[in-house]
Amino acid sequence: MDTNEYVVRPIGTVRATRTVAEDDGWDAVGSEIVLDPAVLTPDATLGLDAFSHVEVVYLFDRVVEADVCHGARYPRGRRDWPLTGILAQRGRDRPNRIGVTVCHLLSAGGLRLEVAGLDAIDGTPVLDVKPHMSGFAPRGEVREPAWAREIMSAYW
Amino acid sequence: MDTNEYVVRPIGTVRATRTVAEDDGWDAVGSEIVLDPAVLTPDATLGLDAFSHVEVVYLFDRVVEADVCHGARYPRGRRDWPLTGILAQRGRDRPNRIGVTVCHLLSAGGLRLEVAGLDAIDGTPVLDVKPHMSGFAPRGEVREPAWAREIMSAYW
Repeated sequence: MDTNEYVVRPIGTVRATRTVAEDDGWDAVGSEIVLDPAVLTPDATLGLDAFSHVEVVYLFDRVVEADVCHGARYPRGRRDWPLTGILAQRGRDRPNRIGVTVCHLLSAGGLRLEVAGLDAIDGTPVLDVKPHMSGFAPRGEVREPAWAREIMSAYW
Repeated sequence: MDTNEYVVRPIGTVRATRTVAEDDGWDAVGSEIVLDPAVLTPDATLGLDAFSHVEVVYLFDRVVEADVCHGARYPRGRRDWPLTGILAQRGRDRPNRIGVTVCHLLSAGGLRLEVAGLDAIDGTPVLDVKPHMSGFAPRGEVREPAWAREIMSAYW
């Protein structure tokens, strides 16, 4: 392994009703995060239920390396949207294949979290779960291009 | 390497005026992200300047494995705050040592991003940069415990 590389080990797995990646309609997906007892003890989630939202860091593990974009592409292949760098969009085929989503926490008990609004399919490896704190929300006015609002119109 | 492990390769490095990890006062830190031309082409940031904020995924690489918490601890060692699971706080000594912060994007040009409000020290490996889209903001009311607001009082 290259000295410039790091090993990550999933702390758990997504269990979800959706088994194949799709672009839209994620709110219809029921999901839970099953944490790995080989990595965490049940008190790792102690106090998490005091938060309404969690940030889930996960791996788009079904994306194969050859498909990863290292430059620019059209979001969702839409030529009516601007040609956009992979770091200026949130598509799956990105270097390191990491996804980050803030979702509702419905319940937390030991090594099992029930969530709503998680855009990850069944079997997705989870790298981290963090509480969402308002102090970490974006500060100041949020500006984004028109296509970024359009791409989200049917997402949830 | 275990079959349950994944390799990540930094896409770049933080260059910052702060060289040692501290808890608070991050807004005083000037920083930029220098992206690696071995991983990305300069068009990887095309269009990023249309966004006001970016989400930076990075590694707390200075945390040694033996210090990682797999259960619960007191946030910042403060015994007047509740004993809290590592997944219910945002401390550095967490499994996989991944940090996620939304910060201001000041400029983006090819493989160099100038940012403000990034809580990462000089030399921090960057795993991903994503545009912050309002469609990915937390939906509904945000609830958090009192200590989570208190811990952020001098953070920025």
